[in-house]
Amino acid sequence: MTITADTADRAPVLPRAALHPSLSQPLLDTMNFLNEVTLRYPQAISFAPGRPYEAGFDVADVPALIETYLDHLRERGLSEERVRTALYQYGETAGQIRDLVADMLRVDEDMAVDPGSVVVTVGCQEAVLLTLRALFTGPDDVLLVDSPCYVGVTGAAGLLGIDVVPVPGTAHGPSLDGLDRVVRELTEQGRRAKALYVVPDCSNPTGVSMSVEDRTALLARARRLGLLLLEDNPYGVFSTVRRPTLKALDTGRSVIYLGSFAKTAFPGARVGFVVADQPVESADSGAPGLLADELAKVKSMVTVNTSSLSQAAVAGLLLRAGGGLRAANEPVARHYQATMRALRDTLARELPPGETESAGVRWNDPDGGFFLTLDVPFPADEAALRRSAQTYGVIWTPMRYFHLDGAGDHRIRLSCSGVTVDQAVDGAVRLARFVKDRAKEDGRA
Amino acid sequence: MTITADTADRAPVLPRAALHPSLSQPLLDTMNFLNEVTLRYPQAISFAPGRPYEAGFDVADVPALIETYLDHLRERGLSEERVRTALYQYGETAGQIRDLVADMLRVDEDMAVDPGSVVVTVGCQEAVLLTLRALFTGPDDVLLVDSPCYVGVTGAAGLLGIDVVPVPGTAHGPSLDGLDRVVRELTEQGRRAKALYVVPDCSNPTGVSMSVEDRTALLARARRLGLLLLEDNPYGVFSTVRRPTLKALDTGRSVIYLGSFAKTAFPGARVGFVVADQPVESADSGAPGLLADELAKVKSMVTVNTSSLSQAAVAGLLLRAGGGLRAANEPVARHYQATMRALRDTLARELPPGETESAGVRWNDPDGGFFLTLDVPFPADEAALRRSAQTYGVIWTPMRYFHLDGAGDHRIRLSCSGVTVDQAVDGAVRLARFVKDRAKEDGRA
Repeated sequence: MTITADTADRAPVLPRAALHPSLSQPLLDTMNFLNEVTLRYPQAISFAPGRPYEAGFDVADVPALIETYLDHLRERGLSEERVRTALYQYGETAGQIRDLVADMLRVDEDMAVDPGSVVVTVGCQEAVLLTLRALFTGPDDVLLVDSPCYVGVTGAAGLLGIDVVPVPGTAHGPSLDGLDRVVRELTEQGRRAKALYVVPDCSNPTGVSMSVEDRTALLARARRLGLLLLEDNPYGVFSTVRRPTLKALDTGRSVIYLGSFAKTAFPGARVGFVVADQPVESADSGAPGLLADELAKVKSMVTVNTSSLSQAAVAGLLLRAGGGLRAANEPVARHYQATMRALRDTLARELPPGETESAGVRWNDPDGGFFLTLDVPFPADEAALRRSAQTYGVIWTPMRYFHLDGAGDHRIRLSCSGVTVDQAVDGAVRLARFVKDRAKEDGRA
Repeated sequence: MTITADTADRAPVLPRAALHPSLSQPLLDTMNFLNEVTLRYPQAISFAPGRPYEAGFDVADVPALIETYLDHLRERGLSEERVRTALYQYGETAGQIRDLVADMLRVDEDMAVDPGSVVVTVGCQEAVLLTLRALFTGPDDVLLVDSPCYVGVTGAAGLLGIDVVPVPGTAHGPSLDGLDRVVRELTEQGRRAKALYVVPDCSNPTGVSMSVEDRTALLARARRLGLLLLEDNPYGVFSTVRRPTLKALDTGRSVIYLGSFAKTAFPGARVGFVVADQPVESADSGAPGLLADELAKVKSMVTVNTSSLSQAAVAGLLLRAGGGLRAANEPVARHYQATMRALRDTLARELPPGETESAGVRWNDPDGGFFLTLDVPFPADEAALRRSAQTYGVIWTPMRYFHLDGAGDHRIRLSCSGVTVDQAVDGAVRLARFVKDRAKEDGRA
């Protein structure tokens, strides 16, 4: 066949069946829908996005951050040539700033972490992907998630063809009885629950935090079940209550710790990390290596290494703040606490518990972080969201987007991270009007 | 069970069978071996790494590059707040600098590319991963590669469980007869050859370039076979002969174009891209979308978006250079040409064709780029490499690392990109001594 002008641009349309099934996940369309609503109603106040508050960020400061890191390298005795190489060349797959990440975890979280167990990643999303790829070997390996669950985890699992099974969550974290039951059922089917993904501090999407007792109990249970715990902690720094991480309590190396700089530094840098100190049988029957080394191998086939500019900027923030980022984030943590308080106080004023609680309107009281859960007496679906945005000027996320089991239909995720206090008040007034009007139509309030 | 100090740190060692099989690929160990040799013999001259020459890079210039991009945004009318958001926040999944990438392809490669068909990625490696994930649906879908093949492609395929089948390469590109045969055999097995990966310009690892006639013939053949072509072009800018890319010749949207800024800007930025203008059936039976949109969906589950700092630095280079990077890279292209010439001339002097050709010593004559192929009359294996490094002070890469079919045993990949002209001469002298000594032992020269 000769290619002629006749055949030009008559390209065959790829049928969806020719693409990986994960690309037809309804999840992706729901995210598109949310973006579309946000773009369509730019005047609406949005409690939807989980993006951090950027007012404290100064663009002009970026060169100084990078310079701070380069000076740090010079102080450590690197020649100008090696400093150039550090910024210019392909870098170590596991990251250039592993030691600074370990320092941060010591300062901010009292965690004793060997830099050799750290892999610096392109955001926490890559850390999730690397961990899932390394640990899941075939169709019989199953990922458990505390349900409802952050969509990045179920999305990454979908790409890798990993089955995800939800463990019912409570107002205090995953249900241990539910965990036992799910693991037992999988075992009976000849399958393996390999790991449980959990966000113990100010969870996305619910805002729930686990108590120290519940953390200890979960660790013990996981160990008994032979289950690894994937602890994701992007919001701990913004909690009003400081509790030890699962990893800090972990004496049996049951926990793989996933970290993010998207909220404590800035999302545009795309820097996250994973701590994986689990011993792994060596390929050549030598001494065991670390799971981190295996994750680095996966990374070499995903992104090769993390941007040296991004690592330098994050390192500059760490160095300038004296090692940790918790103290430096106090002002922004207070901001999130203030917007969440404004949202809750306004909801309490506009939706007085005595009047609306019996109708099924209630919300939780997170210790901080970005998110809270609002229960409503009507389906919080796309039609409701569209109407809320169009008629009331307020946007939120249907909680069922985060459920794998069809639950969460009457729940809403509210994010306080992207609004000012005034917007939080104004948005809560609008939201309360919408909830009251909508509930009234059903004769429920 | 209670966790006590007794059980502390008695972590179970994960057996290798508990990890994904791709982590036990021999490929990864060979790469480790190469790194180990390089670290162990730091005085050796290395023709192994494919890293670009960094002498032209000025660390102090990085802030100015970022500033150039931010000024460009200001000139386009963005407020300071939106400029801050562009650097600080999560960005568009498909990239912030798609328009600048499309401009570059027009200037440098005479390619007419819609910015909407571009996805900016974390290096070309992520572009490969996204493309493979989107296009390969199950165990019956097979990736063909021009053999020998860049290890990043076979590695990414391994992570995703995609079978790779080599198509024999010639001194002029992939064999069309070989391609026909491989596709026919797969079809007879009930499998589908979905795409062929090829590097038409100054290929890694061989240095081979395809003629324009061979490109046109490959395009026609791919179209007849219903095969997509994955064209990877990191070295075209460094060729002494300028030929149209496959994508520039592609009138039937058969080509997915993979690009890298690692060699034309700098590797530390980790910026690459993919052009995927193939129409794709829409999920909701609307107008067809583009494959690029699907790749962006995959990306949202891999790295969310590419570092805004890295995109800004690359954009700064593009803007400063007037849109393209070919002209700006002329000095470094001349450097690579000079080191390759020095290497070839020295080999010709030290291993005169009349004396050594009959013994099987010969090398090819690439049009430029980083790599050339050296044939030797003995197994170019790890023992040979170790001895070459230790006794002769010269390092190279066994070509068989790039073969899936056990071939390439008597071949060496030589890279000219990481050496000066003096080092190229000195290294070639050492290499010639090693080759002569080693060949003599077998009584072959």
